[in-house]
Amino acid sequence: MADFSSTFSFENAIVSQFIFYATIVLLKMMLMSVWTSKNRISKEVYANEEDLKLSPDDKLKIKTTDKDVERIRRCHQNDIENIIPFVLIGCFYCMTGPSPFIAGLHFRLFAAIRIFHTIAYRFAIPQPARFIAFLGGWGITASMAVVVLGSATM
Amino acid sequence: MADFSSTFSFENAIVSQFIFYATIVLLKMMLMSVWTSKNRISKEVYANEEDLKLSPDDKLKIKTTDKDVERIRRCHQNDIENIIPFVLIGCFYCMTGPSPFIAGLHFRLFAAIRIFHTIAYRFAIPQPARFIAFLGGWGITASMAVVVLGSATM
Amino acid sequence: MADFSSTFSFENAIVSQFIFYATIVLLKMMLMSVWTSKNRISKEVYANEEDLKLSPDDKLKIKTTDKDVERIRRCHQNDIENIIPFVLIGCFYCMTGPSPFIAGLHFRLFAAIRIFHTIAYRFAIPQPARFIAFLGGWGITASMAVVVLGSATM
Repeated sequence: MADFSSTFSFENAIVSQFIFYATIVLLKMMLMSVWTSKNRISKEVYANEEDLKLSPDDKLKIKTTDKDVERIRRCHQNDIENIIPFVLIGCFYCMTGPSPFIAGLHFRLFAAIRIFHTIAYRFAIPQPARFIAFLGGWGITASMAVVVLGSATM
Repeated sequence: MADFSSTFSFENAIVSQFIFYATIVLLKMMLMSVWTSKNRISKEVYANEEDLKLSPDDKLKIKTTDKDVERIRRCHQNDIENIIPFVLIGCFYCMTGPSPFIAGLHFRLFAAIRIFHTIAYRFAIPQPARFIAFLGGWGITASMAVVVLGSATM
Repeated sequence: MADFSSTFSFENAIVSQFIFYATIVLLKMMLMSVWTSKNRISKEVYANEEDLKLSPDDKLKIKTTDKDVERIRRCHQNDIENIIPFVLIGCFYCMTGPSPFIAGLHFRLFAAIRIFHTIAYRFAIPQPARFIAFLGGWGITASMAVVVLGSATM
């Protein structure tokens, strides 16, 4: 039987599990775009001249300082800064042949922490809740990166 | 003959086609950086003190509110928020063994829609043109994500 | 022996080397988040109401215009715009079966250039140092993209 432990393939059980959680966090990140759009339309907060026509109010002006929209945008940006490195480094990590238990722990914990991070951001849960969530997710990706560097060739 | 349908390899015809369109949209996204630079230099709109030296005008000041530069930057940010999830989820999708026809439709439509999105942004085409383009691209990535979640292991 | 030249696998020596440098630049990018946090805390520059509680000063207000924090954030954004396309297009490039020497040159030069870019940004080294670093990294990714488009199927 072919050995798929160092190959990025669904035949590799760790890759298959990784793909599940990576897709979950990417979908969560994609929901932020929809959430921003929903708030822009319901609150009539637009950043482009041509978008003002989406509203019946013809005296509406450009606004880039709405508190709710900017909060969602910061949360989205934090996702981009953390989830994309997780997915990229995670792909490499799966191929190093890690223990399935340790690997699953990394993937599940990261997904749970990032969902909590969004809730903490949205409801302005007192700090350091969100800060710890950010650090936790960051640490999981860094932990995988260290394993990857140990398996890769300089 | 080896079966490459669940492996990320050029031997897999769907992967090879995906890589073509993924690279096209990534290059399109990369052009936004060059476009921003070109506008910053031609309009002398700089965000860093040391960049002011790029201009012969020694009374030039930092400016972060130029309408054209900010519009290109918003378009670039929208690309980051949409094209990167497409490429990542698309990689996983190719490995689920989709129908080549359906897969090709996803890839080609996404590329066409995102190129139209940039044109709509640049020329401020009346809404909801750009909004529909955003939703269309988002929906294609979400459609692939649903297939991926059905094939991956929780 | 199986041929891994068109497969994304550690069995492919070029993939293994690529993964090393891709992880280095992703880690460098991730350090920008920590650097932003460190500056926000030490300079007490926060973008969210609930973050103000991280400081003992109860008269502290939201501030989104601190020069140092904004400079680090612009540098981080430039990384996102350049490093992520490098990693994605680089994955595809490894699988086209390039010459190991040429491939290694692309990976090492990109990593060196992006580290220099961060130093140039941080210490405000006179232009066009940072601009040339940006163009150099961009050109390396574009060069790989051209090879990829030649190997992929439309």
